[in-house]
Amino acid sequence: MSPLHVVVWGENVHEHRNPAVAAIYPQGMHQAVAAGIREHLPGADVTTATLQEPEHGLTVPRLDATDVLVWWGHLAHQEVHDEIVHRVWMRLLAGMGLIVLHSGHFSKIFQRALGTRCGLRWRDCGERERIWVCHPGHPIAAGLPPHFELPREEMYGEPFGIPEPEEQVFISWFEGGDVFRSGCCWHRGAGRIFYFRPGHETFPTYHDPNVRRVIANAVAWARPRGIWADHGGVHEPAPLEPLRPTPA
Amino acid sequence: MSPLHVVVWGENVHEHRNPAVAAIYPQGMHQAVAAGIREHLPGADVTTATLQEPEHGLTVPRLDATDVLVWWGHLAHQEVHDEIVHRVWMRLLAGMGLIVLHSGHFSKIFQRALGTRCGLRWRDCGERERIWVCHPGHPIAAGLPPHFELPREEMYGEPFGIPEPEEQVFISWFEGGDVFRSGCCWHRGAGRIFYFRPGHETFPTYHDPNVRRVIANAVAWARPRGIWADHGGVHEPAPLEPLRPTPA
Amino acid sequence: MSPLHVVVWGENVHEHRNPAVAAIYPQGMHQAVAAGIREHLPGADVTTATLQEPEHGLTVPRLDATDVLVWWGHLAHQEVHDEIVHRVWMRLLAGMGLIVLHSGHFSKIFQRALGTRCGLRWRDCGERERIWVCHPGHPIAAGLPPHFELPREEMYGEPFGIPEPEEQVFISWFEGGDVFRSGCCWHRGAGRIFYFRPGHETFPTYHDPNVRRVIANAVAWARPRGIWADHGGVHEPAPLEPLRPTPA
Amino acid sequence: MSPLHVVVWGENVHEHRNPAVAAIYPQGMHQAVAAGIREHLPGADVTTATLQEPEHGLTVPRLDATDVLVWWGHLAHQEVHDEIVHRVWMRLLAGMGLIVLHSGHFSKIFQRALGTRCGLRWRDCGERERIWVCHPGHPIAAGLPPHFELPREEMYGEPFGIPEPEEQVFISWFEGGDVFRSGCCWHRGAGRIFYFRPGHETFPTYHDPNVRRVIANAVAWARPRGIWADHGGVHEPAPLEPLRPTPA
Repeated sequence: MSPLHVVVWGENVHEHRNPAVAAIYPQGMHQAVAAGIREHLPGADVTTATLQEPEHGLTVPRLDATDVLVWWGHLAHQEVHDEIVHRVWMRLLAGMGLIVLHSGHFSKIFQRALGTRCGLRWRDCGERERIWVCHPGHPIAAGLPPHFELPREEMYGEPFGIPEPEEQVFISWFEGGDVFRSGCCWHRGAGRIFYFRPGHETFPTYHDPNVRRVIANAVAWARPRGIWADHGGVHEPAPLEPLRPTPA
Repeated sequence: MSPLHVVVWGENVHEHRNPAVAAIYPQGMHQAVAAGIREHLPGADVTTATLQEPEHGLTVPRLDATDVLVWWGHLAHQEVHDEIVHRVWMRLLAGMGLIVLHSGHFSKIFQRALGTRCGLRWRDCGERERIWVCHPGHPIAAGLPPHFELPREEMYGEPFGIPEPEEQVFISWFEGGDVFRSGCCWHRGAGRIFYFRPGHETFPTYHDPNVRRVIANAVAWARPRGIWADHGGVHEPAPLEPLRPTPA
Repeated sequence: MSPLHVVVWGENVHEHRNPAVAAIYPQGMHQAVAAGIREHLPGADVTTATLQEPEHGLTVPRLDATDVLVWWGHLAHQEVHDEIVHRVWMRLLAGMGLIVLHSGHFSKIFQRALGTRCGLRWRDCGERERIWVCHPGHPIAAGLPPHFELPREEMYGEPFGIPEPEEQVFISWFEGGDVFRSGCCWHRGAGRIFYFRPGHETFPTYHDPNVRRVIANAVAWARPRGIWADHGGVHEPAPLEPLRPTPA
Repeated sequence: MSPLHVVVWGENVHEHRNPAVAAIYPQGMHQAVAAGIREHLPGADVTTATLQEPEHGLTVPRLDATDVLVWWGHLAHQEVHDEIVHRVWMRLLAGMGLIVLHSGHFSKIFQRALGTRCGLRWRDCGERERIWVCHPGHPIAAGLPPHFELPREEMYGEPFGIPEPEEQVFISWFEGGDVFRSGCCWHRGAGRIFYFRPGHETFPTYHDPNVRRVIANAVAWARPRGIWADHGGVHEPAPLEPLRPTPA
């Protein structure tokens, strides 16, 4: 197999506004996510892109060469240009993998690909999250224990406004009394989508070994399986079979 | 049960440009579709709306009172305002049923709700279509024979760029050698979606008794089952359970 | 609509061995479940059947007249005759609804219809269960608050060895630290299946108003939608289309 | 990756009764299927097993070492011992891939894993079958043209009594006027299932290059992705979290 080309996209806003976030992620959250992927997939080519770059760092040639795109956004979903969202969507349908993290649940690309608003309940008091594996044989759960914990995280709670997951890999238990479908798979066209819940900016979640493993597993799982070349209407000039007279 | 409020939305363009279409549908295609629904659901309140009306006939109060929306469009998908598409999408998620007909596969609302481009192959030579029931117990197939035919229709062929249907009700066989998933169910939020393939404007498809029965069955099936009140993020101020000290 | 014919099947063993169970359910657990359904569906014809009756109370004529079958079993799954299991399975495929409760997850009929072993983790220390609604618009969640609680229940925990639910209606949070997909929908043939987790024999769960409402909602949801007459192979003597010479 | 261990299971009855079948498949149908897999997956260890061998050739140690099992049966489904069916089912849930061919739709293992009867309509007059790719990006369709043909095959027609496929890879068009979902994916536990329609014993279908490619692609796709170790109930002795007093 050719080397895997992964782009980790970060909104890169909290890091420059909130010193607490900058302290945890001095090079930006996207760099921490990228580092975790490199740890587990040493042969992969993992680079980053941010909102502030021209075309948000997602030019046509770069996206065409991307196998898997990882997305973290929160404050600035509305600043992502619709044209770039459309471009990412088309590339997804053609076969690129898409990993959406945490507050990316409200990103334009996630809503665009799922067809729902993806709303949820939330609470930010730094409570404990316990993540259970529901699908022990799934490649995204490879190498994990039956459950693992994050000592402090934001809570996301049901109802989560998504289409039914095609495969449910994780469900979270929160100390404060809530549950959430925190690891969900879908496909759209030839491309695969994985949503993974953890990753609030004020906690060191992307330094956690289990979280890093999940994201790297998801990247490997979402690598293109094939190409869906046809994104639009195709006109067939003539039938394959000779037509007979229509019944009177 | 309260009376069912159904709106049949027609693009209403072909009828005014092409005399052949006007001859088949002198009051417009939407009126023929509406008449077929009234035939089978005599207690329903069935009205129509068109592209040309203010807000395309889909004002907020009207949409709020609509149980099921039936959609036919073809030439003018791009003329449907994004704001109205968003409004219909929100109403669908809240519980309204949506029936998309034929060339509506490329409508903004269908793509918006499914999350794919919904492309397909097509050919317009007036060939025979035979529609098979794949799911005999499904309410949308009630009262139908194992298969029925339309003597002349446009061909739509696979691959159809949709998410996997939640229930596959019909598959079409075409005389010219093609197949198509012609009756497909999904849900998004609290709302149900049914796509039904037949209905090219130059053929009298919406006068066909079986086609009318399918559409009426689909309308009855798609009536709201409940309400999904939460379309966005909900902030929970406090945990339900008292939190314990974070492990050191 | 014709009156709904519901049969509540109870294993009826714990009630005769364990005085604590008999104290909670003096007429048997099946009678409490049946009473809850009657409360919410006063027009329904709700009867019971037990393991100890001839043919376990599920004769061919009775089953043929049953719209929805509710199943509770635990100790005696292996005593249910394979022939009766086959009979129930055939009736399900033909269109009957099937509601499986609690420890029925290991019943022959549930495994038979789902195609998996349906294993899970469990713990019986009488802890609190909080049941969250994941699908607010679903008819099975009608009339419920966003979550409700049972003060003491047995814990069931993930991984639950089931095919992915077609609709996820409830997920449970347990005080002891576990989560579970506690309300799941599938269909098989023309019949619908709903699994609902709560109902350990030593707790008064089937007297709980929310639990009763869920079960009644599920019965109404699972009523037959149509008939799948074909359970086997059908030989077509001749093609519908004239065949042409095979290409050389 | 370790070498892939594939077992092709053949009923091996027609070949000894019908000289026409023996002429097409002088070493048995299973050997032709195995040869096709070896062609495309030269590194795989591909062996065969038949009904007539002790334990049908599927001993515990052999099955434990099998990554993907391919199944062809027709006349003798009832002669397959229930104990062996159970064994294959358990191995599937644990992670083994299962490819079911043609008349295997009525095999005990396919019904066991899907939970339906898997009935269909059929006609045997040697008509043309055209197989369309519905899911161009799917690995099982890799290397195939948009459609391919078999000049003479048995017809299988809808309704096909299966749970909704998780991914629909192929749909067949038949010259005699029928359609069929001829390539379908599911998973059960950690194991993957693919059903592929073609392969009537009196036609040289398993010598066809496209059919061989599909089966080899399916074998590669169905290789184990992980292990589901838990097939039954697991007792948790104590809660992870300390319980609080039950509300009065």
